[in-house]
Amino acid sequence: MNSAHQDLRNDRLIRALRRQDVDCTPVWIMRQAGRYLPEYRATRERAGDFLTLCKTPELACEVTLQPLDRFDLDAAILFSDILTIPDAMGLGLSLNEGEGPRFARPVRTSADVESLIRPDPESDLRYVMDAVRLIRRELNDRVPLIGFSGSPWTLATYMVEGRSSRDFSRVKDMIYREPSTARALLGILSESVSLYLTAQAHAGAQVLMIFDTWGGVLGHAEYRYFSLDPIAQIVEALRADPVAEALPIIVFTKGGGQWLPRIAQIGCDALGCDWTTSLREARRLVQDQVALQGNLDPAVLNASPDKIRSAVADVLADFGPGPGHVFNLGHGVTPGIDPDHVKVLVDSVHDLSRSPS
Amino acid sequence: MNSAHQDLRNDRLIRALRRQDVDCTPVWIMRQAGRYLPEYRATRERAGDFLTLCKTPELACEVTLQPLDRFDLDAAILFSDILTIPDAMGLGLSLNEGEGPRFARPVRTSADVESLIRPDPESDLRYVMDAVRLIRRELNDRVPLIGFSGSPWTLATYMVEGRSSRDFSRVKDMIYREPSTARALLGILSESVSLYLTAQAHAGAQVLMIFDTWGGVLGHAEYRYFSLDPIAQIVEALRADPVAEALPIIVFTKGGGQWLPRIAQIGCDALGCDWTTSLREARRLVQDQVALQGNLDPAVLNASPDKIRSAVADVLADFGPGPGHVFNLGHGVTPGIDPDHVKVLVDSVHDLSRSPS
Repeated sequence: MNSAHQDLRNDRLIRALRRQDVDCTPVWIMRQAGRYLPEYRATRERAGDFLTLCKTPELACEVTLQPLDRFDLDAAILFSDILTIPDAMGLGLSLNEGEGPRFARPVRTSADVESLIRPDPESDLRYVMDAVRLIRRELNDRVPLIGFSGSPWTLATYMVEGRSSRDFSRVKDMIYREPSTARALLGILSESVSLYLTAQAHAGAQVLMIFDTWGGVLGHAEYRYFSLDPIAQIVEALRADPVAEALPIIVFTKGGGQWLPRIAQIGCDALGCDWTTSLREARRLVQDQVALQGNLDPAVLNASPDKIRSAVADVLADFGPGPGHVFNLGHGVTPGIDPDHVKVLVDSVHDLSRSPS
Repeated sequence: MNSAHQDLRNDRLIRALRRQDVDCTPVWIMRQAGRYLPEYRATRERAGDFLTLCKTPELACEVTLQPLDRFDLDAAILFSDILTIPDAMGLGLSLNEGEGPRFARPVRTSADVESLIRPDPESDLRYVMDAVRLIRRELNDRVPLIGFSGSPWTLATYMVEGRSSRDFSRVKDMIYREPSTARALLGILSESVSLYLTAQAHAGAQVLMIFDTWGGVLGHAEYRYFSLDPIAQIVEALRADPVAEALPIIVFTKGGGQWLPRIAQIGCDALGCDWTTSLREARRLVQDQVALQGNLDPAVLNASPDKIRSAVADVLADFGPGPGHVFNLGHGVTPGIDPDHVKVLVDSVHDLSRSPS
C-alpha cells in the first residue's frame, strides 16, 4: 500500500475501493457534514455565511470531523463547495439559503470562455489545500480523507446557466449551437480540475472523487463527448502524477446508470451509483472491474429505524457476496433527517455485512 | 387491422407500433399542441385559463388539430391535462402559469385515500370523452388519434405532494413509511386509469399512451412495485376490453432506460425512450419485442436547422434499419421553440428515413 495509506488505522474504504477483502462493508455518506447535524448548524452560524465556512480552514476542518465523532464512519470527506473552481475563476459566486448558487458573471460567449482565469490551486484555492492539510493532521490516520471536485460538465452547467436550472437550456444551447465554445470551456475545466485534485493529493487527500451531478441530463452521445471525455482526461492526468497516481478515484455520474460500462473503462477505481441502479446488475455490467459505491435512496432515512435497517440489508444483498462495495446513499443526505437515523444506517451496514467469525 | 384503424389514410404510426414495414418513419411530438405555437396561445387566450381550455371540447379539439395543419405529423394526440383524474376525484386542481399544478386538498393519510371518489369517465370526465369524439370526427381519419393518461405513480406524486416537487419527499415518505397506504392509493389509481383509457378507446382513441413522467425518481425495486405493477394492471385491463384490446399501447417512463427490459414484458406494444438511452442499445435490451418511441433531446430544437437535421439523422441511425421506430422527442417540446424548427424536424424524419425507390 502506498504511503498515503500505510498508517491508516481504518483502511476498509481503501481496501474496498481496490476490491480487496474487508471485515465488513465500509460506509460513508454524501454530505455527511451538513445541515442535518445541530453541531454543523452551530458552526455555520458562527461562520456567518456558507462561503466563509468553506473558506476558513479551521471551520471547514471542524465540520469535516463532526460526523466522525457521532458515527462509526469509514471515511472523512473534505468539507467544501462544488463551485470553488468557478469561484476562483472570478465568476462572483454567491450562495443563498434556499435558492442555490448564483454567479454574478456567467459564462455565455467564446469571449467569456477565453477570458477565464486558470486558478492556481496553491494560491487561488489555498484555503482548500490548507483545509486538507489541517484535516489530515486532526484525523491522525483514524480514517482516510476523501478529496473531491465537481466534474467539468457539472461545473459548466452552473457557470453557463449562472444558477440552478431545471432544463439546462443555456448550457445545452452552447453544446448544440456552439460546440467549439463548449469544448473550449470543458478543456479549461478539465485542466483546472486536474490541477485542483492533484494539489489535494499533494496536500494529503487519500481518495479522490469526481461528482458528475448533472451528467445525467445529457443525451447518451453528448454524455460521452461533453462529460465523460473531460473526466477521462482528469483521470489520465492524475495517473501521471507521482503522488496522485496511487490514490483510488471514484467517479459518480448521477443518473448515469445506463452508462456504467463506459465509465468503468476510463481508468477509475470505483463508480458511484444512484438508487435507480441495481448493484447486482451494475456488477454484471462492469464485470467486477471496478468497485461500486452506493446506493440507498436518501428518502429512506426519513422512515423508521426498522425500515432503514431492512433497506440497508436489501442494498447489501443486491450487491451480493464478494469485495468491492462501499456503502453510501445514492445522493446527499437531506437537511431534515434525524441524526439518530444516520447512526442506524451506519451501524446496520457494519452489523449486517460482517462475516460471522 | 381492427376497425379502429381500417379507414386511416395515414397508418404509419399504427404500423410502426406493430413493428410492420412503413414507407418512412412516423413522427409526432410530445406536447405538439402547445405554447410554442402562436395559434395555440391565441386559443388559450380566448379560453381565459388553461383548465377551461382542457374542459371545453371544442377548444381542446381546435388546439389538438393546430399542429397538424402546420406540420406533416403522423398522429394527433388528445389535448388534455395529465391531472384530469385527480381533478375529477375532487382534489381541487389549480394551474398557474410558471409554478405548475397545485391541489387544494392533497392526499396524505389513509383516511384521505379511503375517501377518494372514483370518477366515472363518461360523467365526471365527460369533457374528455366529448373531446375525443369531436377530434375523431374532425380528423376524419387523416391520422390516428392518441389518447393518454398519467401513470398511477405519476398521478400519485402530484396528489400526495400537492404540487410540483424536486425531491418527492412526501410521496416517498408514504411508500417507505406507510406502504399499505401507498398501495391502496395506487390501486385506486390503477382502476381509475383503466376505466379512463377504456372510455377513451370507446370514444374513438386509436392508440393509448401512459405517461410515467416520474417513475424515474424511484429506486429500482420500488419502481417495479409502485410504478410498473400498477401500469401492468392497466395494460391487463385494457387487453380484457373488446374495444381497447385492439389498440397499440405505448408506455413511457422518463428516466427508465435501465428498466426497459422489464417494461417490455408487461404486454404493451411500444416503449418511450428519453435521450439518455441509445435506441440501438434499447433494441438489443428488449430484443425487438416491442417498438420504440423517441428520443431527440428537445433542446436540439433551439439549434440551427442544419443541426436539427443532423441530430435527426443521428437518432435514425442509432435505431438502425428495420421496423418498429416512432420518432419523437425524449420529452415535451418547450414553449420558446420556433415552430419553423419543428417543421424542419418533422420533414427531416420523413426525408431521411424514406427508402430510396
